[in-house]
Amino acid sequence: MRVRAAEEVRVAIIGASGYAGGELLRLLTAHPEVEVVAAVSRKYAGEFVYNVHPNLRGIVDLKFVDFDEERLSECDFAFMAVPHGVSATMTPGLLDRGMRVVDLSADFRLKEAGGYLRWYGWKHPCAELLEKAVYGLPELHRAKIRDASLVACPGCMAVAAILAMAPIVKEGLVEFDKIVVDAKIGSTGAGSTPSLATHHPERFGVVRPYKLAGHRHTAEIEQELSQLAGASIKLGFSAHAVNIVRGILATCHCFLRKPIGIPEVWKAYRQFYREEPFVRLVRARKGIYRLPDPKVVAGSNFCDIGFEVDGHTQRLVIVSAIDNLMKGAAGNAVQCFNIMAGFDERLGLEFAGFHPV
Amino acid sequence: MRVRAAEEVRVAIIGASGYAGGELLRLLTAHPEVEVVAAVSRKYAGEFVYNVHPNLRGIVDLKFVDFDEERLSECDFAFMAVPHGVSATMTPGLLDRGMRVVDLSADFRLKEAGGYLRWYGWKHPCAELLEKAVYGLPELHRAKIRDASLVACPGCMAVAAILAMAPIVKEGLVEFDKIVVDAKIGSTGAGSTPSLATHHPERFGVVRPYKLAGHRHTAEIEQELSQLAGASIKLGFSAHAVNIVRGILATCHCFLRKPIGIPEVWKAYRQFYREEPFVRLVRARKGIYRLPDPKVVAGSNFCDIGFEVDGHTQRLVIVSAIDNLMKGAAGNAVQCFNIMAGFDERLGLEFAGFHPV
Amino acid sequence: MRVRAAEEVRVAIIGASGYAGGELLRLLTAHPEVEVVAAVSRKYAGEFVYNVHPNLRGIVDLKFVDFDEERLSECDFAFMAVPHGVSATMTPGLLDRGMRVVDLSADFRLKEAGGYLRWYGWKHPCAELLEKAVYGLPELHRAKIRDASLVACPGCMAVAAILAMAPIVKEGLVEFDKIVVDAKIGSTGAGSTPSLATHHPERFGVVRPYKLAGHRHTAEIEQELSQLAGASIKLGFSAHAVNIVRGILATCHCFLRKPIGIPEVWKAYRQFYREEPFVRLVRARKGIYRLPDPKVVAGSNFCDIGFEVDGHTQRLVIVSAIDNLMKGAAGNAVQCFNIMAGFDERLGLEFAGFHPV
Amino acid sequence: MRVRAAEEVRVAIIGASGYAGGELLRLLTAHPEVEVVAAVSRKYAGEFVYNVHPNLRGIVDLKFVDFDEERLSECDFAFMAVPHGVSATMTPGLLDRGMRVVDLSADFRLKEAGGYLRWYGWKHPCAELLEKAVYGLPELHRAKIRDASLVACPGCMAVAAILAMAPIVKEGLVEFDKIVVDAKIGSTGAGSTPSLATHHPERFGVVRPYKLAGHRHTAEIEQELSQLAGASIKLGFSAHAVNIVRGILATCHCFLRKPIGIPEVWKAYRQFYREEPFVRLVRARKGIYRLPDPKVVAGSNFCDIGFEVDGHTQRLVIVSAIDNLMKGAAGNAVQCFNIMAGFDERLGLEFAGFHPV
Repeated sequence: MRVRAAEEVRVAIIGASGYAGGELLRLLTAHPEVEVVAAVSRKYAGEFVYNVHPNLRGIVDLKFVDFDEERLSECDFAFMAVPHGVSATMTPGLLDRGMRVVDLSADFRLKEAGGYLRWYGWKHPCAELLEKAVYGLPELHRAKIRDASLVACPGCMAVAAILAMAPIVKEGLVEFDKIVVDAKIGSTGAGSTPSLATHHPERFGVVRPYKLAGHRHTAEIEQELSQLAGASIKLGFSAHAVNIVRGILATCHCFLRKPIGIPEVWKAYRQFYREEPFVRLVRARKGIYRLPDPKVVAGSNFCDIGFEVDGHTQRLVIVSAIDNLMKGAAGNAVQCFNIMAGFDERLGLEFAGFHPV
Repeated sequence: MRVRAAEEVRVAIIGASGYAGGELLRLLTAHPEVEVVAAVSRKYAGEFVYNVHPNLRGIVDLKFVDFDEERLSECDFAFMAVPHGVSATMTPGLLDRGMRVVDLSADFRLKEAGGYLRWYGWKHPCAELLEKAVYGLPELHRAKIRDASLVACPGCMAVAAILAMAPIVKEGLVEFDKIVVDAKIGSTGAGSTPSLATHHPERFGVVRPYKLAGHRHTAEIEQELSQLAGASIKLGFSAHAVNIVRGILATCHCFLRKPIGIPEVWKAYRQFYREEPFVRLVRARKGIYRLPDPKVVAGSNFCDIGFEVDGHTQRLVIVSAIDNLMKGAAGNAVQCFNIMAGFDERLGLEFAGFHPV
Repeated sequence: MRVRAAEEVRVAIIGASGYAGGELLRLLTAHPEVEVVAAVSRKYAGEFVYNVHPNLRGIVDLKFVDFDEERLSECDFAFMAVPHGVSATMTPGLLDRGMRVVDLSADFRLKEAGGYLRWYGWKHPCAELLEKAVYGLPELHRAKIRDASLVACPGCMAVAAILAMAPIVKEGLVEFDKIVVDAKIGSTGAGSTPSLATHHPERFGVVRPYKLAGHRHTAEIEQELSQLAGASIKLGFSAHAVNIVRGILATCHCFLRKPIGIPEVWKAYRQFYREEPFVRLVRARKGIYRLPDPKVVAGSNFCDIGFEVDGHTQRLVIVSAIDNLMKGAAGNAVQCFNIMAGFDERLGLEFAGFHPV
Repeated sequence: MRVRAAEEVRVAIIGASGYAGGELLRLLTAHPEVEVVAAVSRKYAGEFVYNVHPNLRGIVDLKFVDFDEERLSECDFAFMAVPHGVSATMTPGLLDRGMRVVDLSADFRLKEAGGYLRWYGWKHPCAELLEKAVYGLPELHRAKIRDASLVACPGCMAVAAILAMAPIVKEGLVEFDKIVVDAKIGSTGAGSTPSLATHHPERFGVVRPYKLAGHRHTAEIEQELSQLAGASIKLGFSAHAVNIVRGILATCHCFLRKPIGIPEVWKAYRQFYREEPFVRLVRARKGIYRLPDPKVVAGSNFCDIGFEVDGHTQRLVIVSAIDNLMKGAAGNAVQCFNIMAGFDERLGLEFAGFHPV
């Protein structure tokens, strides 16, 4: 639809047939400063993008292409929306050819290669890049993202959990070894490949505890929060599948070191997120949406955060809501990209979300 | 967020706390040529808009105001998103003050006052305006909309049914007294006021036939299709509530006057909608979305149209999918407004829809 | 849980890992006069039934077994819940060994072998059995079912459509060549094998027209209704997938031969279904469930039928609601079995359904 | 449908138009030893029961009646399914007339009247009955229930939480002041009265934290668990509304006093629930339902319990799933009734649940 200026940034999306890839396609083809040059999908190479992503019919007339490092190197940026383990085989080559990489996989999130062995059971093939990679959460690492050639975007669960707890962990307000994160996620969290567990008759209407312990995102959450706290944080993370398509609600149960009131908690959050374009503090006294709900942020890049103080148990309960494909994946990746490319961080991410949907 | 130019068009939204009103707020506050001056709601006057429409938190800082004709007259345009019967009491005054009115209610859709008695059981209080009003479906009345002071936007069901059948009715390909429209609609179709029928435990999971005969939108569908056909059309319309929030699928069963093939049907539709920015013809051979589905157009202003020829019964089955709050209400109203104001018709309506949602 | 009497009827369920098979297991293990001897599933042979059907944990301690004609012949009855084409390879052998067969597949529903070529593209391997088979709809063929050795249970869509229209077709009240059945069905209608089309992110929230023409159940509906009418009936059948797991709503649009009133229609239905234990006529003046809705019959063996007369177009709209796995499959099969075995037809099928669910 | 024996137990259901009342009607009219004499509803007095509970059409031909203490006293048992505060005004009179009362409200659950002031903000009008009332959880108080004249059935959330934690609390395996219960509940948990929060467009698709602290069921959970533990237990309870109609999943996060393995936890649960007909331990290695899920128990009286040991944080995570209207309300009440009346505890509660639903 749009005529593109010659100076547009040229990008390629690797893994464009998945859900995060589809969102990148949607966001980046509408981005005023970007030209999407290649939508890479081995499985669908040769097919029109809109056969897989029907929302893009009449909007995107690209066909999927196979992965071809040389041709991709015409691009300035590569977005990697490929499964864990695949990015590590492609990213070094793309970097060598001078491209900047926004990686949505898990492959460069952890700083220590040992973490991959422990949490992923996988020996990292290019551990030397881990130091170079910047963890792609603008609210924590904006300055470093700006100059990075490799940005490792957080896992969707990690975005919700880290943003929920960063301020209070930084302030040291809670016990560091008794944090519980109880997460609820929609079905897109399982990716775009069908299985019995995601078969509609089986998946519809569930409240299914699918990973009560040992969730891989624990590693990166602990890494980031520990760095903020200046102390080792251990996190009990449990994930549940719920009957929605998009969205995460992370309920973070923390025990207070000493009694504090609502105003102090407010202050910590206001201070931390004052300038953030995509973090909203939600703790309303009116209406039916007094606390964050993924329904409200579906399709948007917002992370809504709210909390309650439970005097009965000296517990602080923080809830955060994101769209797992947006602030949890593609939206956050575009936000990082905007920072890297020197654009207004909000470019292409202005969508407000719906009421109701 | 945006700095507005002095020459922006000033608009008021009357009935801004309902679902169509909320969508108008969302669309028009993001519209590059518009300033939303007033969000009118008697019920919520004095409250922040985002208490009712939580998606607009941090985006719209307006408060709802009460209806005040004089103050509204500072605006260039009024969008009426009020219940049937209310618009007719407000619109004449606004027109008298020189405003242009985009009416989303049913009050000015029918050309003959008798239709209101028959289908609505209501004597029209200002029938003299019916002639002046233009039926707000750009695909049929674009030229007249441009100069109209009063545009009567179609009912959501009517948009889906008329756009589905306009080309074949115009070509006279089907029998005019045996048309059946079997419509399926999401829960926002019932509006924003709670009732037992919309109580989640009762409404979730239904396939509820709620108006098998006598649906009011029949009147306007017949009016518009008869005009296109140059002959009287009678329509059997039946509506069902289904387990989604947004969306309409209209399945139109027509009997062919003489056997025709798929290419002839294609031709009729291509010709009719060739230039239309918001009508997509969908009849794919690949993928799982081979025909229109409201899931694909949720949040967008598209009307997707597809069809099948059933040689067994000489039946042509046309399906159309819209988002009832967008192309079925607020989106279509903004499209009309863009035409009236001389803007590009697509302004503020570029959103593609999601995959998946 | 129950101690079984020596004289219990011994049954085998072939295809017990699918959804209809699972329902048969649930119904027949709770049936007071039945012993389930074998649950056959090639895919899951050796596994506990409750690993596939988690509702049966603690209730059914059977393991799936492979198909073994000789061992099955210890049983009195075989329920065939296998895919189309498979039953025809197994059923003749079971009949030869003296078993009575309740077949839930399509393989013996049509009386003419030519119908299989036309609608299924499949040459019937044992067409000589077609004459012998009784179409398993008790409301139409109760007497013949009693003595049959092979009962061919109807397709789920066919149950809904035939029961909806049998009385008016028999009375000849409507035009026979302009009948439209617009059906809506839940995701279990697609069976238990995952695919992209049934992947929760893709299937949730759809109103997807998946078979607008050429649906195979058309053949058996026309066969049965034509027989009732004593005249050839042609049916335009269109199927839509909706966002529920269980349930079918069939909306049948018929054009009246001459104007008739609601009482005459009532009379036809009352007369036809007076003695039927599982057909309820629903046309209430109070409450929010005034017409049939699959939500109300989920889990039960009821077929609820209601109607509206549309004087505007001389149209009679009949709606019927069933649970596709119950009256549309397993429940109806058990009802046939009860008749064949000489039991009270309602045995094991007393479940009322939930409000709400 | 059934002819009732003269010696059937005569029961009245007070509050029969609500959801728990409707389930009691369904269960007790199908109960082989019970005659339902009165279905009391002030709001719907004079209307047929099936207008409100459409599943009972053709099954229950009762009309709702107004509350009339004298007429009710013909009954042996009264089931109170009325709102909190109402039962306390009715129950003393019914007890005085010699009836036995199964109360589903909160009015007699707490042993100390002070608890009502603190958690309910309500001064108990007949606190002398609190001592007499037996907490109606058969798994904890079976013997006392047998002889009780007043049984106070637990809150739905309390059933899930108490059954999940009773064995490990009794064994003293976990820290008593750091227990977190993160509960997810369907929309029937909000009762049958419509409101904006339960309006389908607003309630569909939510993961809404609605009571992060201060939930009233905390009081009874602590009461019962403290009694089992012989020590004071403090519980951090947080409730979320999810996109289902029926069901609760309680995820209980506990910190271990000392490292223990899975076998020890198993042992504690097996021992505690060995003889229980409605508690199932679920921790499978195969299939997709390896842990409890409310989807599996919908409609049944089962409480499924499973767990995971998280060595990383020395955390024991226990999950329990119930149908909030069954084991969380009506089903559990009938179980208590069976005990009180000397029947097999499972009578009328044999329903297995569906796969899938």
